[in-house]
Amino acid sequence: GCCNSCRRELFVLTYGALVAQLCKDYEKDEDVNKYLDRMGYDIGIRLVEDFLARSAVKKCRSYSETVDMIAQVAFKMYLGITPSVSRSNTTENEFFLILENNPLVDFVEELPAGRTSLCYCNILCGVIRGALEMVHLAAEVNFIQDRLKGDDFTEIGITFLKKLEDKKHKRNK
Amino acid sequence: GCCNSCRRELFVLTYGALVAQLCKDYEKDEDVNKYLDRMGYDIGIRLVEDFLARSAVKKCRSYSETVDMIAQVAFKMYLGITPSVSRSNTTENEFFLILENNPLVDFVEELPAGRTSLCYCNILCGVIRGALEMVHLAAEVNFIQDRLKGDDFTEIGITFLKKLEDKKHKRNK
Repeated sequence: GCCNSCRRELFVLTYGALVAQLCKDYEKDEDVNKYLDRMGYDIGIRLVEDFLARSAVKKCRSYSETVDMIAQVAFKMYLGITPSVSRSNTTENEFFLILENNPLVDFVEELPAGRTSLCYCNILCGVIRGALEMVHLAAEVNFIQDRLKGDDFTEIGITFLKKLEDKKHKRNK
Repeated sequence: GCCNSCRRELFVLTYGALVAQLCKDYEKDEDVNKYLDRMGYDIGIRLVEDFLARSAVKKCRSYSETVDMIAQVAFKMYLGITPSVSRSNTTENEFFLILENNPLVDFVEELPAGRTSLCYCNILCGVIRGALEMVHLAAEVNFIQDRLKGDDFTEIGITFLKKLEDKKHKRNK
């Protein structure tokens, strides 16, 4: 609806102001990326509580279920989009979220001048990482492809760092 | 609905990260306030186009109509709240928006330590100022009262800087 779009617009413009400010503060793209990730992490650890309360989701029993939940429920709720999910052919712990549309860059034509290594939306990686950590899932979350860098679509990689078996044992204690 | 709240939450947490970053960058509260206002201004001049397109509002013919539009249409659309409006008894050009609830501070218990002069939500003043300027209305916009500073409610003052007659003449050219 209209109001959803409006509120998203205010959010997206505010996020743009945040990125611009960090670009002023930090010369190296890597530092901006790190800060965005860190901010996202702080947001993720707070957001997950709200997410679990609202979504009334069942406990996920596999990485695959967890990633589907992120894509189909969490992204839908918070950003209004549903990324498609794919899975690594080589390892069991690696998944990919593919974003056809990314509302966070609605008003961004291209990366700021000279900022070729900037991961503009890196806050999303931090949010996912923080939220997963709060449900005791350690993960690395990174941009694999980015439309702002000329790729065909935007892709976020999620690599879970522990075997799920460890968790199952713990739960049965 | 649920998704409105979720998206608002992500926005509010992101805004909090922005304010925290500015507090790290600038020692003086006045400088943080200035930057938030400036960021808001940049957002306002972009947001107003979207607002006029979506809201299909008629041209406002008085300051009073303009302020009602801000409170009842714009605040509702972008923040999901409707401030009440009051008018100065002494001057024709001064109005007040009274916010019983302020979603931007949903997760803020109090001002950061030592930041007693921080106008946490100063971005709102900038947004209003920028948006008004784009419809050729110069205004000063400031926080008059702020719940975060112990006041009973949050109040934004809008003072229009030109007589409306000037505008009417121009329109008839």
